[in-house]
Amino acid sequence: MTTAEPVVYINGEIVPFSQATVSISDRGFILGDAVFDTTRTFGHRIFKLQEHLDRLYESLKYMRIDPGMSKEEMSNWTMRILDNNIELVDANEDIWVTQRVTRGSRVAGADIQGSSSKATVIIETFPIPFKERASYYTDGIPIVTPAIRRTPPDSVSPRAKTHNYINLILADMEARAHDPHAYAILLDANGNLCEGNGSNIFLVKDGCVVTPKSQYVLGGISRETTIELANEIGIDVQEADVDVFDAYTADELFITSTSFCICPVSTLNGATIGTGETPGPVTDRLQKAYSGLVGIDVVDQYTMWLK
Amino acid sequence: MTTAEPVVYINGEIVPFSQATVSISDRGFILGDAVFDTTRTFGHRIFKLQEHLDRLYESLKYMRIDPGMSKEEMSNWTMRILDNNIELVDANEDIWVTQRVTRGSRVAGADIQGSSSKATVIIETFPIPFKERASYYTDGIPIVTPAIRRTPPDSVSPRAKTHNYINLILADMEARAHDPHAYAILLDANGNLCEGNGSNIFLVKDGCVVTPKSQYVLGGISRETTIELANEIGIDVQEADVDVFDAYTADELFITSTSFCICPVSTLNGATIGTGETPGPVTDRLQKAYSGLVGIDVVDQYTMWLK
Amino acid sequence: MTTAEPVVYINGEIVPFSQATVSISDRGFILGDAVFDTTRTFGHRIFKLQEHLDRLYESLKYMRIDPGMSKEEMSNWTMRILDNNIELVDANEDIWVTQRVTRGSRVAGADIQGSSSKATVIIETFPIPFKERASYYTDGIPIVTPAIRRTPPDSVSPRAKTHNYINLILADMEARAHDPHAYAILLDANGNLCEGNGSNIFLVKDGCVVTPKSQYVLGGISRETTIELANEIGIDVQEADVDVFDAYTADELFITSTSFCICPVSTLNGATIGTGETPGPVTDRLQKAYSGLVGIDVVDQYTMWLK
Amino acid sequence: MTTAEPVVYINGEIVPFSQATVSISDRGFILGDAVFDTTRTFGHRIFKLQEHLDRLYESLKYMRIDPGMSKEEMSNWTMRILDNNIELVDANEDIWVTQRVTRGSRVAGADIQGSSSKATVIIETFPIPFKERASYYTDGIPIVTPAIRRTPPDSVSPRAKTHNYINLILADMEARAHDPHAYAILLDANGNLCEGNGSNIFLVKDGCVVTPKSQYVLGGISRETTIELANEIGIDVQEADVDVFDAYTADELFITSTSFCICPVSTLNGATIGTGETPGPVTDRLQKAYSGLVGIDVVDQYTMWLK
Amino acid sequence: MTTAEPVVYINGEIVPFSQATVSISDRGFILGDAVFDTTRTFGHRIFKLQEHLDRLYESLKYMRIDPGMSKEEMSNWTMRILDNNIELVDANEDIWVTQRVTRGSRVAGADIQGSSSKATVIIETFPIPFKERASYYTDGIPIVTPAIRRTPPDSVSPRAKTHNYINLILADMEARAHDPHAYAILLDANGNLCEGNGSNIFLVKDGCVVTPKSQYVLGGISRETTIELANEIGIDVQEADVDVFDAYTADELFITSTSFCICPVSTLNGATIGTGETPGPVTDRLQKAYSGLVGIDVVDQYTMWLK
Amino acid sequence: MTTAEPVVYINGEIVPFSQATVSISDRGFILGDAVFDTTRTFGHRIFKLQEHLDRLYESLKYMRIDPGMSKEEMSNWTMRILDNNIELVDANEDIWVTQRVTRGSRVAGADIQGSSSKATVIIETFPIPFKERASYYTDGIPIVTPAIRRTPPDSVSPRAKTHNYINLILADMEARAHDPHAYAILLDANGNLCEGNGSNIFLVKDGCVVTPKSQYVLGGISRETTIELANEIGIDVQEADVDVFDAYTADELFITSTSFCICPVSTLNGATIGTGETPGPVTDRLQKAYSGLVGIDVVDQYTMWLK
Repeated sequence: MTTAEPVVYINGEIVPFSQATVSISDRGFILGDAVFDTTRTFGHRIFKLQEHLDRLYESLKYMRIDPGMSKEEMSNWTMRILDNNIELVDANEDIWVTQRVTRGSRVAGADIQGSSSKATVIIETFPIPFKERASYYTDGIPIVTPAIRRTPPDSVSPRAKTHNYINLILADMEARAHDPHAYAILLDANGNLCEGNGSNIFLVKDGCVVTPKSQYVLGGISRETTIELANEIGIDVQEADVDVFDAYTADELFITSTSFCICPVSTLNGATIGTGETPGPVTDRLQKAYSGLVGIDVVDQYTMWLK
Repeated sequence: MTTAEPVVYINGEIVPFSQATVSISDRGFILGDAVFDTTRTFGHRIFKLQEHLDRLYESLKYMRIDPGMSKEEMSNWTMRILDNNIELVDANEDIWVTQRVTRGSRVAGADIQGSSSKATVIIETFPIPFKERASYYTDGIPIVTPAIRRTPPDSVSPRAKTHNYINLILADMEARAHDPHAYAILLDANGNLCEGNGSNIFLVKDGCVVTPKSQYVLGGISRETTIELANEIGIDVQEADVDVFDAYTADELFITSTSFCICPVSTLNGATIGTGETPGPVTDRLQKAYSGLVGIDVVDQYTMWLK
Repeated sequence: MTTAEPVVYINGEIVPFSQATVSISDRGFILGDAVFDTTRTFGHRIFKLQEHLDRLYESLKYMRIDPGMSKEEMSNWTMRILDNNIELVDANEDIWVTQRVTRGSRVAGADIQGSSSKATVIIETFPIPFKERASYYTDGIPIVTPAIRRTPPDSVSPRAKTHNYINLILADMEARAHDPHAYAILLDANGNLCEGNGSNIFLVKDGCVVTPKSQYVLGGISRETTIELANEIGIDVQEADVDVFDAYTADELFITSTSFCICPVSTLNGATIGTGETPGPVTDRLQKAYSGLVGIDVVDQYTMWLK
Repeated sequence: MTTAEPVVYINGEIVPFSQATVSISDRGFILGDAVFDTTRTFGHRIFKLQEHLDRLYESLKYMRIDPGMSKEEMSNWTMRILDNNIELVDANEDIWVTQRVTRGSRVAGADIQGSSSKATVIIETFPIPFKERASYYTDGIPIVTPAIRRTPPDSVSPRAKTHNYINLILADMEARAHDPHAYAILLDANGNLCEGNGSNIFLVKDGCVVTPKSQYVLGGISRETTIELANEIGIDVQEADVDVFDAYTADELFITSTSFCICPVSTLNGATIGTGETPGPVTDRLQKAYSGLVGIDVVDQYTMWLK
Repeated sequence: MTTAEPVVYINGEIVPFSQATVSISDRGFILGDAVFDTTRTFGHRIFKLQEHLDRLYESLKYMRIDPGMSKEEMSNWTMRILDNNIELVDANEDIWVTQRVTRGSRVAGADIQGSSSKATVIIETFPIPFKERASYYTDGIPIVTPAIRRTPPDSVSPRAKTHNYINLILADMEARAHDPHAYAILLDANGNLCEGNGSNIFLVKDGCVVTPKSQYVLGGISRETTIELANEIGIDVQEADVDVFDAYTADELFITSTSFCICPVSTLNGATIGTGETPGPVTDRLQKAYSGLVGIDVVDQYTMWLK
Repeated sequence: MTTAEPVVYINGEIVPFSQATVSISDRGFILGDAVFDTTRTFGHRIFKLQEHLDRLYESLKYMRIDPGMSKEEMSNWTMRILDNNIELVDANEDIWVTQRVTRGSRVAGADIQGSSSKATVIIETFPIPFKERASYYTDGIPIVTPAIRRTPPDSVSPRAKTHNYINLILADMEARAHDPHAYAILLDANGNLCEGNGSNIFLVKDGCVVTPKSQYVLGGISRETTIELANEIGIDVQEADVDVFDAYTADELFITSTSFCICPVSTLNGATIGTGETPGPVTDRLQKAYSGLVGIDVVDQYTMWLK
């Protein structure tokens, strides 16, 4: 059924995407009081669903939201939605697969501090913007460090993946003030590089790879995957405090994310990184290893749109 | 039509509350990428609508969201929704009146950093939980300072009223760990008292009133109203940095909010404030002045539910 | 001699506990200008006296207090006091053994900045409250993170064990605001978990054990002992920055202290840790290892009081 | 009875100073869990006893210690002790008069977090070291800013006067590292000047007087007195954030304390302040006004020892 | 002598600009161990020389550099250099006039910590880039807040005007990453707006003018002048903590500096300020008042270059 | 030609030291907008030139200064200057060898933010003050921690070696307030020990060596050399956060720098380190290893001046 639209799981029902809505009293809407997690498909096969669900349930635990559903049920529903929706996707494309859980709706006549209805659970898929991002793989991403600092862990932990993204949205607006293609990588309260909107940053120096420690950043699954791949192919990897001095003097920079996998960075605040070659040799090796792991050429999937 | 449910304005249409929904792709939902403002009625008359809309448009400006609607249109729609819904409310009750504007929905095939559809605008009303809160006016509110600190202004400004409330929700969960009736008043990054979920804090010492400066707090309209009332009835008021030492040694504490107006505090982290009398004499004078201003007895409206 | 009271060493003399006093001009009293260290007995045998004295002399060095006595003399006097006092203790109970050294008394006619008499040295024993704490071993300790932050090392080092405990006392009063059985574990200035009044915190996640780094915490001897035991029985242990996200998502939490040895935690700010089982399996293994090391069942010594 | 020693009030009894002691289990001793306040006599008359008792009871409130005695009783006992002890003092000397209240003794068999006996109350007098300090009034005090920062208010409030003085003691040891006559004035966590051990700092610039705001400093009674005197004699006074730039470029610096009243500063970290004249003209005017207020020449009382 | 080049005072001699040099061992060169101050001419008359020299001598005092010259001598030499050089300047242009004092040269065979030769004193003039900046007066300056924070006062006071400008240079490089015309306004360590390279920032809101407090900023003479002018023409002015929320929601922004006098800001991080009109009405009034004070049209002097 | 003076490379020319100057418009002078690096000779042979040039080019990259010269050319010119100047040096002395690169001169008629001429490159040598420092090797260096904190990395990275030294100069002035022989070791913004003016600090405890992590400190080449030597001779070395508690309780302290190599510390803020023996046994072993590596006795070269 190729012309049909994708479907969405929402509180026990499966509905077409265009009819998938939440109440305007849902706390996920009015307060961002919700968590989510997102994996993607590679060659139409889902990637590390279990790891993503483990992380989802950690976010739930931190937020004290009871999804009313076991991980196994969540996994089963996810596969059912995916099986339906992947049929609608072209062979050379792939999709994001997302679970969302809100604390439910606010209750009339009760204080918002103390009450809510049963959790809202949503499972959906969404197209990855391959075409829009294609040139980043040849030209590299221009990175900007905005003045806005990542929300500190004693306000809200950056390690819970929630519906509160304004800190990261404001950061990207700053970064894009004078270059609409730029991405923000924020500094944390101590002035160290931490993360961007959904992405982790890696530095390459003298053949070694370094990435910020995981306390101020959401420990991305693709970040973990990249660390494992580097170990496997014999590249030294460290998690350490890194700051802009490290970044300006690095040989290569790249970012990782669920959809980007590994994408080279061209400039930091306008300064060319290393020789300016994108990708640099270490980034290139890691991209190839990533492709090997997931069974498709992750760079080609983007750059084919340039032709 | 007494049995009808309230209506909601949503993107140019008026729908019954139970059918008022937003897409699961709305950025207000998935990212909390939205702003709102809330006033209330007193004796069924709306309170300081213009001041609330001014603040709403400041939040919009900070967030760079274009509502696609002038303040005047927003005001007109608000009054139309109110006029309909207030008919359904008992004479001795009142309601919250809220405008919400999201950045619109994410766009398939585009990066979330750079694109969105047209803004989503919602105008709604909601019952104030008079009954649930009634005893606070006789017994006082137990306040707790949680370990979580208010999000600092260089991460997200506390002065924009947005759909990102997790910082305040986590604070209330901490405060309610061992007392389900407690409210959180957070400290800011410098260790000063700032604000709670929708409420401002005031201290009374030697007949004078002090409240935290407005940089780390949303400058509540009821906070402003209280300051003006105090000035009018000859009570000295200051905006200053205040910390827990000030609070523990205060003669009286009270909180202000759109719905609470002015409500006395009984304890801070379990320590009785002043003599323990709630309300204390200065709080009582200010409550009475508030009632005078809005034309109904704001304390009676709550405490009548205790009978 | 069962009815006799314990004795105390004080500046070269041995006196009954009830007559052991210090001058109201002693700087240990008026300024808290003193250090101490405390070990305990297990089955009436003293535990790691040398390690505790080493730590005592580090505190003395940091504070620039000259005790006027070598470690060996301090050890000898300690054993003499212990030998006398342990005779008064029931077979199934044990005691704390403490050395205290103050800078001596203020001098009349001199500035407090520049002068003091000879150090005051005290060696004493004190009963451990086995009965009062017994239920923690079956039910777990409820932990609260207070708003008060641990004194930072550039004000006073948390690694010196001194007579300045107000920071920790205020923290416990906050934690006990609404639950008289709760214990405080404080955050440090960076928002990481550090320590409580005399106790260290450990997290268990996926079979591994993590505890805060020792810069912001007094490196407890029982903390060290637990790390060594974990290594011996093949449990992976790390010292790392840990925050509340780690704690809320941990499988088990426990605290260690000289007297508690290892005691399970039930809740953090009201949220159940792991499955809620106390002790969890890793905590249980470590408790048993601790018992093995000290030669008595450290859990039974507490829980026998529940019968 | 001129040769008799002074007496001390201690828990309802009056004893000679040399017999005034507290138990080694008193929490004021082992934890510094106590508060105090100190005024002095001028010409054998007590100064602002009521203001000092008000401050004492604020410290008690912050610490949640119940003294078991009203302010009036405390005042009466204070006068009784003073009346006895002042007889022993030479006509040209004066004394400190101090109240101390501890939380009482720890209780055997109970956790230190949750229990203590009845408060310990002490009232005592102590000689002021006029001779030792005399040369400061002619030569000025050499001030040093140590690396140690004043304990921040979210750890322990500097506005409660307690038995926890190690932060200030360490600061003075740093300051005196290479000049035994130097006094420390600490910076707070924000890098502003705050206070020293029992003393407040004032700057004079272009005829105006500035002193740090009172949040990070104990608002000394002599600080208040100085502000009032300046206002009375027409000198402009401000409370503001001041840092070392202000201090290095000031025309005059002076410190105030209960015993010092007003004493000029000669150098800051070795740099001469203003022209180096001590006291400078504004300091001199304020010293004279202070003498006028208290009825004796406060400078002469010190400098007479130089002859 | 119209073709002659300007002259420079350097250590007692007057030399042509092209021959004015310092030794490569001068501490002002190798360490930036020097202070300076700069005023300008308006219609060839020097502006507030005395105020600038007062500030210069405060910088010297903070840095403990002895210029070996009284303020009066410095003033006399300045006027002598100016009188010579102003002859070379077109009637419609003006120049900067600068004094510089370094600690002198390092001494061979001595540690750099403890020794230096006699101070180096330089007095020079320099052309103001009227043409390059002309369009800012019609289009406004695009402002960017870089990630780099202003050096905090407990590292180096921003109030001393020294030869250490790297913090501000790095900030401008960040700001100009993607717009070569942008200027940086930095945030301070608390996240407040402070200053840019040689310039102060002002906000206009509801007809009132606000500028950051002077602790984190060099209190510019033009900043002072603007405050005085606003007071004179009846515009309310405050010095307060201001952050980006204030700036994004301001009606107008402008910057002040010795050479810019008052120049409107168009955008902050790409967001249009107010209606986008440059200058806004309050900025315009203040510019006109500035012109009145200095006796030439300060805007025309720039915008004439656009024709 | 023994009486000739040393020569200096400056922008392509070789000139006698006494004629080596820079324009008063050079940004390295007026803004400290320059970087440098310094090695030294041992027995007239240059030490680790390549490592120092690598670091120089990292500083250049961070500062975005283009030297207009490859590392190889820089190395060749350095050797040429050295070969000339070393002839003038006594056999038992050695010299510093320094490269400096400034961003060039400011451009008349252009804004300082956006323009400069071609880089200024200088290569010079300078005598090491062996005689002045000789007694430090027998008596140890008295170390003081000043109140001034090391400039944080989000203001200017301490890892770039620039011409902005005021932070470190002010620190030394504080340290020398009351002891002209003292050296400052600064704390960083977190209260950890970091570095002094050109020197790194090492602690010895229980036979192990610890030095601060390299983020807040310039990773000195001699620091690296010391770490390597320790590893080679079997001494355990760690890079860790260290604070004053570690330092006060250390067995030995020493500092490293290009010229000092390894020099013992006697006191910290007046408190004797360890037993007071200088050098301590571990310091002594490392000094001997250093001498072995560089081929001359580095201690004798200093202490011979004491005779």
